[in-house]
Amino acid sequence: MTAREPGGAPVIGLDLGGTKIAAALVADDGTVLARHSLPTPATAGAEAVLDALAREARAVWAPAATAIGVAAAGVIDPAGGTVTSATDTIRGWAGTALAAGLAARTGLPVACDNDVRAAAATELSGPYAGGNGPGTTMIYAAVGTGVGGAIAVDGRMLHGAAGIAGHLGHLPSPEAEGLPCTCGATGHLEAIAAGPGITAHYTRMSGLPADRLEQVAARAAEGEPHATAAIVLGARAVGRALGGLANALGADRVVVGGGVPRIGARYLDALNAAFTAEVMPPLRKLRPVPPRGGADAAVLGAAALTRTLTLHHPHTTGAPR
Amino acid sequence: MTAREPGGAPVIGLDLGGTKIAAALVADDGTVLARHSLPTPATAGAEAVLDALAREARAVWAPAATAIGVAAAGVIDPAGGTVTSATDTIRGWAGTALAAGLAARTGLPVACDNDVRAAAATELSGPYAGGNGPGTTMIYAAVGTGVGGAIAVDGRMLHGAAGIAGHLGHLPSPEAEGLPCTCGATGHLEAIAAGPGITAHYTRMSGLPADRLEQVAARAAEGEPHATAAIVLGARAVGRALGGLANALGADRVVVGGGVPRIGARYLDALNAAFTAEVMPPLRKLRPVPPRGGADAAVLGAAALTRTLTLHHPHTTGAPR
Repeated sequence: MTAREPGGAPVIGLDLGGTKIAAALVADDGTVLARHSLPTPATAGAEAVLDALAREARAVWAPAATAIGVAAAGVIDPAGGTVTSATDTIRGWAGTALAAGLAARTGLPVACDNDVRAAAATELSGPYAGGNGPGTTMIYAAVGTGVGGAIAVDGRMLHGAAGIAGHLGHLPSPEAEGLPCTCGATGHLEAIAAGPGITAHYTRMSGLPADRLEQVAARAAEGEPHATAAIVLGARAVGRALGGLANALGADRVVVGGGVPRIGARYLDALNAAFTAEVMPPLRKLRPVPPRGGADAAVLGAAALTRTLTLHHPHTTGAPR
Repeated sequence: MTAREPGGAPVIGLDLGGTKIAAALVADDGTVLARHSLPTPATAGAEAVLDALAREARAVWAPAATAIGVAAAGVIDPAGGTVTSATDTIRGWAGTALAAGLAARTGLPVACDNDVRAAAATELSGPYAGGNGPGTTMIYAAVGTGVGGAIAVDGRMLHGAAGIAGHLGHLPSPEAEGLPCTCGATGHLEAIAAGPGITAHYTRMSGLPADRLEQVAARAAEGEPHATAAIVLGARAVGRALGGLANALGADRVVVGGGVPRIGARYLDALNAAFTAEVMPPLRKLRPVPPRGGADAAVLGAAALTRTLTLHHPHTTGAPR
């Protein structure tokens, strides 16, 4: 149950999302030796998803491969190798014995963690780490359908009580005052800054229906003032929350990823301005940046989990559930 | 420059505040073997304060004492042993070579850190640690003239970029919206939740002058509704900020210290209610608690710094400035 010693052998990284499973065989220096992907059988249940993960691992298999790392959506317990909680994107996913089930199917030891944490880990080690040393304190926000994230302190990724560290969407936000949050509280960042939060705020202000953030972004591009205001408010709320958190933690790296920031420069300009207005003088030079990892970040992060987390071995974990 | 090995020899703990220096000779098991205190010569400058610290160390001296730990107000750089920044409570204190100056005066190696962080450390090790294991993730708020604090992750105290980790007063707070903060930003927690923030808000609401929080507390005790509202709002702002931060970090211990919470049960009731409404379901059983350490927490925390931080030795640090 101990972590793999760093060495020369390649490992398999699996990125499990709601629509796609991506696999890569990754050399010790971070080079991707093989890639494969297939659709997630999300409605077929947890056993079918474990079968699909094993099939994907075999698709990039090499005889020398020593371990599998899985980056998965939901709250994951790396020590137990299980899915603590999850939305219904994958039917019956909460409670799945992810590591044990995959180890039994493949015969290889398995490490697993939340997908955002795995992607964030590529900022700290491997080919995308750049100058980030082992002492980096990083806040990594993922702004999409929800607002999630990951926090690393002194170069180590936090898990926290019940594995919930990194839930940046559930900080109180002045911009979200009074709005209901998915977690049951009111006034949380996610309620105004996630894609659905921006879209709903646009509809409240304009009285016009909108189903998706892309519609709001298109109307903002056409100069519609309510659309622009909703996007800027969401960006500002994220910038303020990240600035305050940077003050509390003494962050030296702030990364903003996810789908929402890709809607354009106006979003990032508003986020950066709000962040800079929020931070204390010693942090004035700090600027939020986009993720470095690109398309490979998820599978590289998954592969890297085998180096830092508990490995669940097939012979110690018993039969799959 | 390495930390002292744990062993049997006693160490000296010094707690430097704006009005008082407290000293204790502390055995390895946390027993206080001797105590002394004297007023801080705050207006006499940094050299006079270093002289007074050395005098206090000698007042509790034992031949077996192997090191001195200093807990001091302001932003302290434990690695450099210097005062990064400070208010003018002690004249000329910012920039002082604290560890080198005291090591040269006493001939003993010196470790130093911020006073709140040192007090918070007593929650994690020593006689007041209770059941907190090395994996504890703790948020420790100190609500007084300002709102400060300390954050420990997996049992280790954070310092962060520029040593600013723990500045909990500079999180955005919906309750403080639009109010100027001491750091230059607007809308920060400290502006509505520190003692002066509560007092100023009472004056804004009531139109009545008030110089000190104690006056507001006395009027609240007499049933004055504006006084009660100002206190409850400050408490609520702290509770919400700590709840959001607990979500982001996955905290398993939240401590609220400082002078403001001592104004009464109504304050703590409002803080606890706001905290509980803010946290995500996996943290619903978490409750903010008062500090465990009592009157000795500061000197015990100071003494404990010699076990975990860089020791600055007299022969490697040169002459005092």
